[in-house]
Amino acid sequence: MLLAARGDEVCAVGRQPVPIAAGRVSWHPVDLLDVASVAALLEQVRPTHLLHFAWNVEPGVYWYSSTNLQWVEASLGLLRLFHRCGGTRAVFAGTCAEYSWGSGGLLDERSSPREPATFYGVAKDALRRVSDGYAAREGLPLAWGEIFSPYGPAEHPSRLLPSVICRLLHGEEAPTTHGMQLRDFLHVRDLASAFIAIMDSDVRGAVNIGSGERTAIADVVRAVGEVVGRPDLLRIGGLPARADDPGVILPALGRLHGEVGWRPSISLRDGIVDTVAWWRATMAADTAR
Amino acid sequence: MLLAARGDEVCAVGRQPVPIAAGRVSWHPVDLLDVASVAALLEQVRPTHLLHFAWNVEPGVYWYSSTNLQWVEASLGLLRLFHRCGGTRAVFAGTCAEYSWGSGGLLDERSSPREPATFYGVAKDALRRVSDGYAAREGLPLAWGEIFSPYGPAEHPSRLLPSVICRLLHGEEAPTTHGMQLRDFLHVRDLASAFIAIMDSDVRGAVNIGSGERTAIADVVRAVGEVVGRPDLLRIGGLPARADDPGVILPALGRLHGEVGWRPSISLRDGIVDTVAWWRATMAADTAR
Repeated sequence: MLLAARGDEVCAVGRQPVPIAAGRVSWHPVDLLDVASVAALLEQVRPTHLLHFAWNVEPGVYWYSSTNLQWVEASLGLLRLFHRCGGTRAVFAGTCAEYSWGSGGLLDERSSPREPATFYGVAKDALRRVSDGYAAREGLPLAWGEIFSPYGPAEHPSRLLPSVICRLLHGEEAPTTHGMQLRDFLHVRDLASAFIAIMDSDVRGAVNIGSGERTAIADVVRAVGEVVGRPDLLRIGGLPARADDPGVILPALGRLHGEVGWRPSISLRDGIVDTVAWWRATMAADTAR
Repeated sequence: MLLAARGDEVCAVGRQPVPIAAGRVSWHPVDLLDVASVAALLEQVRPTHLLHFAWNVEPGVYWYSSTNLQWVEASLGLLRLFHRCGGTRAVFAGTCAEYSWGSGGLLDERSSPREPATFYGVAKDALRRVSDGYAAREGLPLAWGEIFSPYGPAEHPSRLLPSVICRLLHGEEAPTTHGMQLRDFLHVRDLASAFIAIMDSDVRGAVNIGSGERTAIADVVRAVGEVVGRPDLLRIGGLPARADDPGVILPALGRLHGEVGWRPSISLRDGIVDTVAWWRATMAADTAR
């Protein structure tokens, strides 16, 4: 929608239709895992720019799902076919899971070790390595937006913020872990705007995306409690922490600030207000049905 | 041929026909880069075991060729489809180029760093990481034979041994670099036998393959001079060394010896005699044509 709003011609691709703005946005129902369909679509559309976000990200499943192999395979084919059809600029979604976790410092695109703890991280990291090598040989400007802790409307209901918000809105207790884990939360609309800024820039390779603010998960949960008006239902520390949950996952943002020149515009408080409002509206619509 | 000789039913696959033993070896002309053809072949054959060697290995080209991307893509698809068709054991060809070069020590499958210097190495390393993650999730026993410095009949004529042998057989001077680089040379028939031993074992992940002998390249060249009978034509040091040519590339062989239980059977001297004889016969046949 940000792209269409500024006048870009947008072709959205995926298996399931999503709500899209009218006008210069067209919808193409294609399974990106089917290389023949992807080839036919690219021949037809001949896109100049490619933003690639698709992957299996089903909560609780994607970290170790076998489908990570197929997404590497499909993403390599997508990049190759996009280039063959005359594409000139590609930006792929990367992830903080490509980095080794646990060093405690800021994760840096160029100097931090990348020995991913999960199969998802291994797959995204391997895809980036191969794609960057290919792009360098072919003179195709390819960049990666490394996603850390996004949140916002339409997030999967089993993830942290939606699960707490929905429980509070239903008047139920919301137990969480101790919440001392430090993360860089970013509203999904800011995330989208950062991807567009990266696409518009000429940076290549990995660029971390974040707000630059380090926030304890417990503080986000408390903010949700206040915005919903039910801080009394929070049970911070009511769930045991997962042993494999890193204490600190925070991005170094030197490239994003210095080379892309992008900064966020939505404060954490405003972003939570927006997210809670979306869930209130969604639940009201469900009830009205 | 080693497989057919012991009674295995062998299906050879590739774009170009190769001389193959009769009987239990069948030839399937399929382009492995074409996933639909590969899927059809696997559905038809339903192989139990898979040995995967195919890649772009054109000398002087493959280190940085864009086709490395397509070989990663195709190899991931091959593994996935092989598993879907009921395959039970896969062994893929890896390479010493997956390792960081220049440490000087023996390269170890589990402890040596893998930051490949070339795109070929990046691609093979990335393929291994993703495939191993997939195989672990799917319970598919997948192993890798890491190839170091193979030689023998039918090698590409622009590579070291064939180029020196052919010059000497033609009575021409054969200039080489200083030749002080240390390598682990292995005759291609021993290499094939090692792959079969790995396939027959239950090891998983990367297994280095080598003779266990560290040989200076100049010593191999001198041996070629003696076997051909024209040591006078050697010009060791007559070519400048490449700045990016590592001084030492040698495998640790603990897994190959301890877990696979394989040892080579062809000495370097016998292997060179065999290789020179093959080139004599090939050149005689060319002349007779």
